[in-house]
Amino acid sequence: MKDNSTSSSGCLYLIPTPLSAESEWVFSRPIEDALKSSSMLVCERIRTSRRSIKYMFDQDSFDLLTFVEMNKHEANDYIEIAKKALKSGKNVSVLSEAGMPCVADPGHRLVLEAHRSNIPVHPFTGPSSFMLALMSSGLNGQSFAFHGYLSRDQDKLNSALRSLDKEIKKNGSSQIFMETPYRNQKLFDSILRLVSNDTYLNVSMELNGQQELIKTKSIRDWKKHPMIFKDKLPAVFILGQP
Amino acid sequence: MKDNSTSSSGCLYLIPTPLSAESEWVFSRPIEDALKSSSMLVCERIRTSRRSIKYMFDQDSFDLLTFVEMNKHEANDYIEIAKKALKSGKNVSVLSEAGMPCVADPGHRLVLEAHRSNIPVHPFTGPSSFMLALMSSGLNGQSFAFHGYLSRDQDKLNSALRSLDKEIKKNGSSQIFMETPYRNQKLFDSILRLVSNDTYLNVSMELNGQQELIKTKSIRDWKKHPMIFKDKLPAVFILGQP
Repeated sequence: MKDNSTSSSGCLYLIPTPLSAESEWVFSRPIEDALKSSSMLVCERIRTSRRSIKYMFDQDSFDLLTFVEMNKHEANDYIEIAKKALKSGKNVSVLSEAGMPCVADPGHRLVLEAHRSNIPVHPFTGPSSFMLALMSSGLNGQSFAFHGYLSRDQDKLNSALRSLDKEIKKNGSSQIFMETPYRNQKLFDSILRLVSNDTYLNVSMELNGQQELIKTKSIRDWKKHPMIFKDKLPAVFILGQP
Repeated sequence: MKDNSTSSSGCLYLIPTPLSAESEWVFSRPIEDALKSSSMLVCERIRTSRRSIKYMFDQDSFDLLTFVEMNKHEANDYIEIAKKALKSGKNVSVLSEAGMPCVADPGHRLVLEAHRSNIPVHPFTGPSSFMLALMSSGLNGQSFAFHGYLSRDQDKLNSALRSLDKEIKKNGSSQIFMETPYRNQKLFDSILRLVSNDTYLNVSMELNGQQELIKTKSIRDWKKHPMIFKDKLPAVFILGQP
């Protein structure tokens, strides 16, 4: 971990959390040190963040650590509070709900404010469900795009899937998106209906968990044995070419 | 870690390595177990992979572990050797040179072959330089594209930079690319010359290392104090909007 003690302001630490209780990845000692050196923890939900800390370190919190929630509706409140602490020389940690903060997750506005105020930012390595999925997919990992969640509107979803398929045919880059568990079947069925037979689909479910499932097949082969999403588990979908 | 012992074939493990000797992320016990249970290690260079194992576990190798190099020129050789071992029930590990295998790195063809033969694939969490950069950039992490290395040809590079800038203006998604250390200055200067003033640029150098440097500014602000790349260090560049 870089020593930022020469700076007059504090350091903004970006701290991931495990994707599941069965995760092989756990908080390292340097992450514990960063949390212990912080006077403020910025998170999505105080209740679950306290639970994460309790689970990983077997203690409710650390001395002096106050919790601040990122509030979607008053977006700048927590930013001002955290910036004031950082400028006064205190360290602040951003903790995700699961995986890495700021990527497919809130937090990036505070990070940009830190850059604007010349406050050092230090990230810690942790799990990212779509990176684990991409690495395990066997699809092109040299060039890809991440789209978060596609539209819930069926017409817009159809046109998005058609345009992703065209993009793959044009430049071969992998196209990554996620879905909320209860809509996995609908998305999967739409993909089989709209994407060309020779495009490949990776489905990665409950990565790092007990029921981890990672499968890549061509759309043609998926059609022979379509997937039935019995359990409502978080999933990543990747369309691409080898 | 998922127990794949019920499968008649072995499991293909995907194993990252630290980005630098100062990395806070190190191999976890489950990664050590996966390596110990493997009969074959697929890597880019045997010499550096032996050094990684020596460094992390203070032993030259593990019993029964044979090393196989991914050979770019005879791409299918190592795939056939690894597949044969996997089909006979042995576990095989793919080890990267630095960061995660198969993403901006070779290995994905073996993974696709594993899927085609119904061989289970299991990824381990590890560092990714461009994910650490994106997380620390303060730029849009909900939608982004990764392009690997841009063209070395100046005309093609110019047109790529103009088209990425257009893409950001159109849909706000972050555009990530890398450069080899000795060409960082040339790429940086080209960006300042071609990208619009209100677009933001993140430069992340030697992530996880002693000289880690992470800065995000608008092109307008970079022009006031341009960066001088004195040391030849690996860098990630991200163009985007907050």
